[in-house]
Amino acid sequence: MSAPLGAIARPYLLFLGDAPDRETAKTAIGVHHWRGRDCAAQFSLPGCNVDLGLPELDPAAAAARGICTLLVGLAPLGGAIPEHWTRAIVAALEAGLDVASGLHVRLGDVPAIAAAAARHQRRLIDVRHPERLFSVGDYRRRNGKRLLTVGTDCAVGKMFTALALEQAMRRRGIAADFRATGQTGIFIAGGGVSVDAVVSDFLSGAAESLSPDAADMHWDLVEGQGSLFHPSYAGVSLGLLHGSQPDAIVLCHDAGRRTNGDFPGLPLPSLAECAQTNLQLARLTNPAVRLVGCSLNTSRLTPDATERAIADAATALGVPCVDPVRTGVDPIVDHILAR
Amino acid sequence: MSAPLGAIARPYLLFLGDAPDRETAKTAIGVHHWRGRDCAAQFSLPGCNVDLGLPELDPAAAAARGICTLLVGLAPLGGAIPEHWTRAIVAALEAGLDVASGLHVRLGDVPAIAAAAARHQRRLIDVRHPERLFSVGDYRRRNGKRLLTVGTDCAVGKMFTALALEQAMRRRGIAADFRATGQTGIFIAGGGVSVDAVVSDFLSGAAESLSPDAADMHWDLVEGQGSLFHPSYAGVSLGLLHGSQPDAIVLCHDAGRRTNGDFPGLPLPSLAECAQTNLQLARLTNPAVRLVGCSLNTSRLTPDATERAIADAATALGVPCVDPVRTGVDPIVDHILAR
Repeated sequence: MSAPLGAIARPYLLFLGDAPDRETAKTAIGVHHWRGRDCAAQFSLPGCNVDLGLPELDPAAAAARGICTLLVGLAPLGGAIPEHWTRAIVAALEAGLDVASGLHVRLGDVPAIAAAAARHQRRLIDVRHPERLFSVGDYRRRNGKRLLTVGTDCAVGKMFTALALEQAMRRRGIAADFRATGQTGIFIAGGGVSVDAVVSDFLSGAAESLSPDAADMHWDLVEGQGSLFHPSYAGVSLGLLHGSQPDAIVLCHDAGRRTNGDFPGLPLPSLAECAQTNLQLARLTNPAVRLVGCSLNTSRLTPDATERAIADAATALGVPCVDPVRTGVDPIVDHILAR
Repeated sequence: MSAPLGAIARPYLLFLGDAPDRETAKTAIGVHHWRGRDCAAQFSLPGCNVDLGLPELDPAAAAARGICTLLVGLAPLGGAIPEHWTRAIVAALEAGLDVASGLHVRLGDVPAIAAAAARHQRRLIDVRHPERLFSVGDYRRRNGKRLLTVGTDCAVGKMFTALALEQAMRRRGIAADFRATGQTGIFIAGGGVSVDAVVSDFLSGAAESLSPDAADMHWDLVEGQGSLFHPSYAGVSLGLLHGSQPDAIVLCHDAGRRTNGDFPGLPLPSLAECAQTNLQLARLTNPAVRLVGCSLNTSRLTPDATERAIADAATALGVPCVDPVRTGVDPIVDHILAR
């Protein structure tokens, strides 16, 4: 396993703040689901309605048990960091923890937090604001194998599918690493690049750096972002597609969705059109790219409708189709290995 | 004519520094070629081998004649700003001029320049570093007509063609504005957005802001960037394509080039393939988009070969093909008006 980019020290103390519901804490929940071993404890404030079943520790007690980083994985409540969160973050720094945040506001832009970090020489990691400088993409072919999850839209299961593939491959003894491109993914992987926060000129270069040279049979499983069919984010998706140079793509789709989640007037492409467009554009940097599977989010369908949707997608695309939650992703791994 | 974004006050004092050749001064030369009326004087240092035929004025004399901005339109010599350029820039600020720069280094990162700007309350404009914050693209259709120049590669004439179209349209009394997306274009237009310097998340939003609502028959002529077929910059090109929502595209190509200018191992697409891919992807945000012309840079061809190249491109694409330098772009304007 390669060390992730911009590594965040683990284990984590998951900061739940005063999250009123699971939606607000979904990043912490995702990290706990996929990397339970990295989550040593939780830290709640009065009013919190979420319980991950982890030991409840304050920062001082967490530091005493060897915990390295307070993870602020909460959905941002408006713009600024609330005063009571600031006090909790400062307490973590005083206890000797680093602090990693997925909030839009930079931790270091809050004077009390910046001062505490400097005083105690702790790291502030804002995963939405890459610290690293990237180069322009150099188009160099890298060793090892790469798979990218692509989608008909945002929020259709691209991260979940890449993580499920990592898990399934590792269970079979295949060397495989999830490569994170968004906030939650970065906390799960302990590193990565928030590609939509990179300056456009360096987009494909950042994507290239995310899956560096690896052993011949090693698989990087790159988390896709946005969609070539999303009017706001297609540029990000294309830069990631070109820089990732995928050997394989898996098409992800929310089977309950017919129109764009942000723009209800815009129909989603068919699965076949979406797959073809991704393959067509991906060939620029990897002419051997192929579609190896389809991953449906069927959470809004009945069991019968799910079965039909999976069968229809498999027929339309000619590759295995799965729901990573209901069926697992093994048919896709089988298909990859059969080649 | 709408006011350009991030407007730079004109007229300009063109700073030629100690440019050894015209290549080093090509931005200043481009601004002088396309906007001679905005260029009131030039300012050279000892060793300069370029003469634009403008009055030679130092900053104090320029300020006395009502010149507003020193334009540092020189190709960057390595990373830092040389000490003798810094002295010239500080002199301009002391004389009461703003300073606009296309260098990679931010003017304000040079302490002496930052101090002089603050002391004399003058603006420092780094066109490679947008001051504005942009929004995520909102996909809203805007009033007025838009044309985007796209290309088979970088540096094939996309800016030149858009400027030539603006000139040809205005000569016929058509309301038309060149919209700049790169350094030289921004100096020429007196504003614009350096799209490759925008954070990826806001790429199409920045492109949208570049050609705001306009009168029904007004044409925005948007300068293209990169190419969908360039492995390093295709994401930028796609964000610009989607945000521009072009009604019309003009395909630009260097007729002497068969492989990518940065990656000699990568063949360029055929004109037909490049046009089709741009149209296919552009339809997401403007289903009525059409190809209205092809613009060839034939500077490396003989007159006979130029004639053949223009005829072949017109046949392959079924639209007028021009060399903006040798033939002018009127056939493309005729084609647009005929619809």
